[in-house]
Parts: sequence; structure tokens; C-alpha cells
Amino acid sequence: MGEFELIRRHFQHATDPGNAVVLGIGDDCALLQPSPGHQLAVSSDMLVEGRHFFPDVDPEALGHKALAVNLSDLAAMGARPLGFTLALALPRADIDWLAAFARGLFGLADAHACPLVGGDTTRGPLNLCITVFGEVKPGQALRRDAARAGDDLYISGRTGEARLTLEHLRGTDWAMAPLSDETRARLERPTPRNALGILLASAGAHAAIDLSDGLAGDLGHILSASGVGAEIDLFALPVAPALQALPVAQRWECLLAGGDDYELLFTAPPAAREAIATAATSSRTPVTRIGRITAEPGRLRLLDANGLPLALSLRSFDHFAT
Amino acid sequence: MGEFELIRRHFQHATDPGNAVVLGIGDDCALLQPSPGHQLAVSSDMLVEGRHFFPDVDPEALGHKALAVNLSDLAAMGARPLGFTLALALPRADIDWLAAFARGLFGLADAHACPLVGGDTTRGPLNLCITVFGEVKPGQALRRDAARAGDDLYISGRTGEARLTLEHLRGTDWAMAPLSDETRARLERPTPRNALGILLASAGAHAAIDLSDGLAGDLGHILSASGVGAEIDLFALPVAPALQALPVAQRWECLLAGGDDYELLFTAPPAAREAIATAATSSRTPVTRIGRITAEPGRLRLLDANGLPLALSLRSFDHFAT
Repeated sequence: MGEFELIRRHFQHATDPGNAVVLGIGDDCALLQPSPGHQLAVSSDMLVEGRHFFPDVDPEALGHKALAVNLSDLAAMGARPLGFTLALALPRADIDWLAAFARGLFGLADAHACPLVGGDTTRGPLNLCITVFGEVKPGQALRRDAARAGDDLYISGRTGEARLTLEHLRGTDWAMAPLSDETRARLERPTPRNALGILLASAGAHAAIDLSDGLAGDLGHILSASGVGAEIDLFALPVAPALQALPVAQRWECLLAGGDDYELLFTAPPAAREAIATAATSSRTPVTRIGRITAEPGRLRLLDANGLPLALSLRSFDHFAT
Repeated sequence: MGEFELIRRHFQHATDPGNAVVLGIGDDCALLQPSPGHQLAVSSDMLVEGRHFFPDVDPEALGHKALAVNLSDLAAMGARPLGFTLALALPRADIDWLAAFARGLFGLADAHACPLVGGDTTRGPLNLCITVFGEVKPGQALRRDAARAGDDLYISGRTGEARLTLEHLRGTDWAMAPLSDETRARLERPTPRNALGILLASAGAHAAIDLSDGLAGDLGHILSASGVGAEIDLFALPVAPALQALPVAQRWECLLAGGDDYELLFTAPPAAREAIATAATSSRTPVTRIGRITAEPGRLRLLDANGLPLALSLRSFDHFAT
């Protein structure tokens, strides 16, 4: 079976394209028509075997996750998904694998009305590269450089379960208690927060980022881009039941430097508290206020229940760290 | 050195962004503002070591080619480049390699005012995935399904030198004559035909495709999408000096099924001949009329100098062919 036949069989799936897709798969380019006056948001992520997923990963979960991490970038800008491209290097043409991968991919694509509009398939070591396109009204994008001193700091959902699951799968001693399916799903099938992100953009939120490298490290990107500092009220952080039994050092590590959370970390002025609460309710997404933005550039303080600073040593995940 | 530092050092290059880039590298998404009312053209290509380039490839040539093959897709739609994303898996952080790669990449990006707006870098077997964005006026995109019986068939530049160079590098016996730098450059540093493509879109051209898999095979995609047939006047095909000394079978193979040409194959009604000639002159791109579109769906006839059909056996390049 040839390359083109592979693509046709498994990737010509009829996600409802909405009005934005003028021309989908099968030409030199896809053609999209964004809503009048809107800006286009684009992001690319590449997933590599052995680094972003285990060689024996369930292909259906992989299809879901590959798109989820990209949709999460749109969510963090407050952009509405329009479509995506998929470039795929495969060591062999394994039909069962492709069918399961496509199921996971299109399950999530359908749920977000985000159609596959083009891509590429080639032979090579397993590698997935997805680029997503979304749209957002001018001035409403949730940029990293938009945090202001005095803003509240919020998080959607909760952090740490993906990291706990990863350590469990690696056989790390402190992570060997049995995990629920719900906890495992946080690593294997993350839920991008697009409905929330879109509502935040019109609710007056300022800055946002999606949590891929860990709460503290990703917050650092906002602080650096905005030239501000922050305080996190550690005891305001929502803690999943699976994390409550962990040794305290590992619990903080998971919560603050876990990685792979795909939750939104965002800021908004106190005047927007009611609008933020409405956005959370309307999108059925739990949102917790966990701290505030301060004026000191780059200074992150972690406060205990008495408002006193704690010194924690944390390391953000880095693909090139040795 | 960490992942983010790598990206910052080598990929924060100041290509003049024009007016379209609202927000470039460094946030969850880039933000683009297409011209009012325009459609967005997008395309992704993935290049893998050992399949699309040799392991010892000159990294500067590779940087050029990775973007060139994507720009060529925009050219084939008649779309003006707005920007691109790059996702890169690297086996190690080799600074000299990255610097040379970036030189080749940004040399071409600058020439097309097509800035890098985002991307991803990770450790893994060498893999490059570029997604390009362009804009085109509604109704002007050069779609594969737009060829009409009676259209003239044109090609830009000439085909076959990339294939000859590939066979030369592979040590194939019929390809061992010394090659000029100009011939080698057709494989290693192809020239995407964007200026021509943009002018063709407003000159009334109908269908277009860029030649990546070989003239005959890529023409087949137009015939199939448009439900038409075609005749190629073989003796009208421009033949590079390097191909003139080849055995006749290999010459046809290079010309008609060479692959990696990145020329435009397009159709236009005879009434547009003057406009097409003007587009060729204005873009300083050689254009040759090589045949015509016929009414018989899917039928491709190759005609000799006397207008008589020739039977040639040709095979299009396929990454999954065994």
C-alpha cells in the first residue's frame, strides 16, 4: 500500500468543519477563512517516541494526546480552534496502529469541531508533529506579557497527577501505590481547557499559559515576559486525592514542577472575579485562585498557610537537560 | 544548555515580519493578522534523515530546502507567504550544525519576507517539520480541481536535474558524469516559485501543483481532482544540458518522474496566454507551454514530435513503496 493510500484510508475523516474550512486535505495547501477581522493563532508541537511517550503507548491515547497538547496552546491564548495539520513519520505501515491512533485523534478533534485539514506521512522513526490554527478577536488574546501587578493568579483543575503517573510507570519507589483510571488519564488522555480559555478571553483575563513543564516553571515564563513577580499560596493549591498520601517533598514536586498538566494558569484583575467565576461555571471547569501578581520582576514567592515564604527546590522539565 | 536557550540563540532571527505578524516566537501561540477578507493557505511537510536527505547533508542546504519545499506548496496555491513554524527533533545540541542550519533557513525566509513565528525543539532522531502560512484572495487559489478541458498546460523552469544529482550521489552508473554546481543546487537548494505563483493567481490560471514526486505523477493528481485528461508534447519539455547526454530511457525518467523538482505545473485557458507570459516575465521565471488538458478523465497521453503517442513506463516516488 502506498503513502497516499495510507493517508486516504485513515485520515480522511469527516469532522464537521464548521464554516472556516474552504478546502481540506488533498491539495498543495488547505484553505481556511477566519471570521472577519479576527487574528489567527498558530502553534506547533512535536512528539517523539521515548521522550514524550513510551514505545508501547496505546496508540489511541497517543492520538488523543498529540492533538490535546496542541489544543491546549490555543486554549492558553483564548483562541477558538479552526483546524490542524498532522505530519507523521512511521517506522512501518501498521494498519491496526493507525486505526487506533486515528480513533483517538478524531475523537478529540470532533469534540472540539477542529478538523484535520492537511499533513504529511513519511517513513522514519516514530514522530508526530501537529500544528493547530485558531482565531481570536484582536486585543483579546491571553498573552504571557499581559500580567499586571495586583492581578489575581488562577489555575484550572489541579496539577501533579500526570507526573505521579509517569513516576509510577517508571517504577519510582515513592509512586508505586495503585493508581485510579482517572489519575492515569491525566497523563495519557489530558483534557485541554478550550471552552474555559475562549470565555476567559472575553471575561477580561490578562495573561495565560498552559502548564506543560510544571506550574512554577511555566509561571516563570509569565513573570519574565510581563516583568512582574508572583506569590503562590501553597495551601490554596487543589490537591488530588492520589497526591495526599505522598511524602511532602514529592507532593510539592508533583504540584509545582510536575509537567504534562495541560491546565491553564492565568491572571485577571480583581474586578474580573465575578466574570472569571462565570467563565468557570459556563465551561464546567474548576478554577481556583492560588495567589497574586506582584511588582518585583521575576520574584516568585511560595507562601505557607501563615503567609510565610517557604524555600522549595524545584526543577522544570527540560528535554535537553542532562 | 537548556532547550529554551537553544531556541533563543539560533531561532530568534529578525526576519522583517511585514504587517501580518502580531506576535512571534515566545508565547503559547503566534498571532497573525491576514489581510482583510483573504483566505489562509496552510501546508505541513516533514523531512526525515535517510529518506529526504543523507545523514551527511550540509546543514545550511538542509535549512534552505526544508523551508523551500514548504514555500513551494504556497506557490502552487498562488498564496503570499506570511510566516512559518519549525518543529525540530535533534539527536544532540550541536551548535555548529544549528548555526549553519539557521543560516540556510533564514537566508530563504528573508528572501521571501516569511518570518519564523513559532515552533518546538526536542531531542530525538533528526526530523524537521515545517508548517507555512500564506494568504490568497477568495476565488484566486490555484486548486488541483480547477483544470478544464481545453486549458493549456505549462511548466516553470525545467525538471530532472534533482533526480540526476540524487542518482549521482547514490553512485548509479548512468549518472556518474561530473555535475555542475548549478545542477547539484537543483537537489540541494531548490528555488520555490512564489513570485510566479502569486502572479498566476491574478493572471487567470486555473489549476496548479508543485512538482515534488515527478511531472507525470503530479499531473495525475490534477487530472484526478479535476476529472480531466492531458497530453504532454514530450519534445516541448525543456531539457537541461546535464540531461542531454543521458541514455534516452533515463532522460525520460528524470524529466517525467524525477521528483524533488519544486517547479510549478499549471493550467490556464488559451485566452490567458498573454497574461501568463507577463507573469513569467515579471517574476523572471522561465515558463514553457508543454501540452493541453483534454476531456477524457484520467487519461494522460505522451506525444512525440509528430503528435503520436509514446508508451513510457514511469514510476512516481513513494515513501512507502517497497
